[in-house]
Amino acid sequence: MTTRTVFFVSDGTGITAETFGNSILKQFAIQPRHVRMPFIDTVDKARQVVAEINRTAEVEGRRPIVFTTLVDPDVLHVVKEECRGLVLDMFMTFVEPLEAEFGMKSSHRIGRFSDVAKSQEYHNRIEAINFSLAHDDGQSAKNLAEADVILIGVSRSGKTPTSLYLAMQHGIKAANYPLIPEDFERNCLPSALAPHKAKCFGLTIAPERLAEIRNSRRPGSKYASLENCRYEVAAAEALMRREGIAWLSSTHKSIEEIATTILRDIRPDRLVY
Amino acid sequence: MTTRTVFFVSDGTGITAETFGNSILKQFAIQPRHVRMPFIDTVDKARQVVAEINRTAEVEGRRPIVFTTLVDPDVLHVVKEECRGLVLDMFMTFVEPLEAEFGMKSSHRIGRFSDVAKSQEYHNRIEAINFSLAHDDGQSAKNLAEADVILIGVSRSGKTPTSLYLAMQHGIKAANYPLIPEDFERNCLPSALAPHKAKCFGLTIAPERLAEIRNSRRPGSKYASLENCRYEVAAAEALMRREGIAWLSSTHKSIEEIATTILRDIRPDRLVY
Repeated sequence: MTTRTVFFVSDGTGITAETFGNSILKQFAIQPRHVRMPFIDTVDKARQVVAEINRTAEVEGRRPIVFTTLVDPDVLHVVKEECRGLVLDMFMTFVEPLEAEFGMKSSHRIGRFSDVAKSQEYHNRIEAINFSLAHDDGQSAKNLAEADVILIGVSRSGKTPTSLYLAMQHGIKAANYPLIPEDFERNCLPSALAPHKAKCFGLTIAPERLAEIRNSRRPGSKYASLENCRYEVAAAEALMRREGIAWLSSTHKSIEEIATTILRDIRPDRLVY
Repeated sequence: MTTRTVFFVSDGTGITAETFGNSILKQFAIQPRHVRMPFIDTVDKARQVVAEINRTAEVEGRRPIVFTTLVDPDVLHVVKEECRGLVLDMFMTFVEPLEAEFGMKSSHRIGRFSDVAKSQEYHNRIEAINFSLAHDDGQSAKNLAEADVILIGVSRSGKTPTSLYLAMQHGIKAANYPLIPEDFERNCLPSALAPHKAKCFGLTIAPERLAEIRNSRRPGSKYASLENCRYEVAAAEALMRREGIAWLSSTHKSIEEIATTILRDIRPDRLVY
């Protein structure tokens, strides 16, 4: 497979540009070598970036690919005019048609996070992370009334990473609560959850996959056996069905896909972008 | 401020498109109303989306903005040709010049996560999240040799969210360890960290901001007092300086900015995109 050097040049962290650029590059049978160039916010820094890109072009004998999300026109100008890479401008490409559509100029203001310490949105995100950590794995039944969503499911069905992702990415206060054999014997939801049933969302998982995951942590245990996994998953699904709780299977889904599906379902009022 | 309805139409989660689109919209003095349309992977679903967009256009008397990251040409065609919104195509806009540059067609394969259960990269990410959770706040000194980075700093300097973010977004095994008054009295790093000094990275914070954060959790305590925060921060910085540990101030930085700076400094071999 051909390799190609790909630069991500941003005046901020460049994380979005890199994630997005990478999903585009995955459409091609090439092996990208990533070089991140974050916090490029002056003409001087842009010149240094250009020098490195041009050096790479020379050494490799091939144009590097350069994804940019530069907001400052002067900084962008240096990269666009002076570098010998294929520049894909992820910012101005969309800002220009929007300026025409809205009949106004864009602010060319750098960074989403300039006033992080003062931002309510950011404060909510950190609060949500703290909440989700404090309410991981049924650790605390306190303040469940504050939760935006409570994920339930058997051990290792994907609740913890999903809760943390919802908090981190979307500022959602996501608690999670395990369904355990005692719940299946009593044949009802853990009592702490009963008043909050409307906010519960279930995760299930194929027993074969669950056994695999559990075996990598506790090899050969009854907990990890396929038989026990089959029992727990069937019992958890029966319980959720009876209680009228929506659920999805995490077996073939990423954290992002699970989180997106949950958000579509619970439609919280408050969402951080 | 003008409001405008903005649709994010994706065949996957649309999270990247929404984050990215939102950072572009923040350049304008408009109030966007977000509508997410994830998992649009058939022509039929595309027609439903188009119907909703066109209904919105009619009701509001203004073109909605439509960010798309559709990969399937047939699905994209329906949205581009039939909808009465301003379509900003975040996918083909960049795929076309890359096809020309690489001299090959793109695969038009949907989704980054199609084989999530089998992907090594995904497995590493989940492992990293579990590692970071198990090594939050100095909970365990076991397996610190496995850590890619160990964040240190006084209580509430931002270690926990940063560790989780590094794990979640980049698959980095990030432990974190608090620096506490006992460490300042003994005047050296916690002994568990001594063998791993090369992997330590410090977070510091302005005492005024620290007092604010601590006061919102334990109002009026000695722990939260400005005097104590000043002492702890000065002692932690002196300790890190003496031990030769790089650090940054989290005071005005977002989790993303802190994480990006750390990655630039530690340059781990292994990075998930």
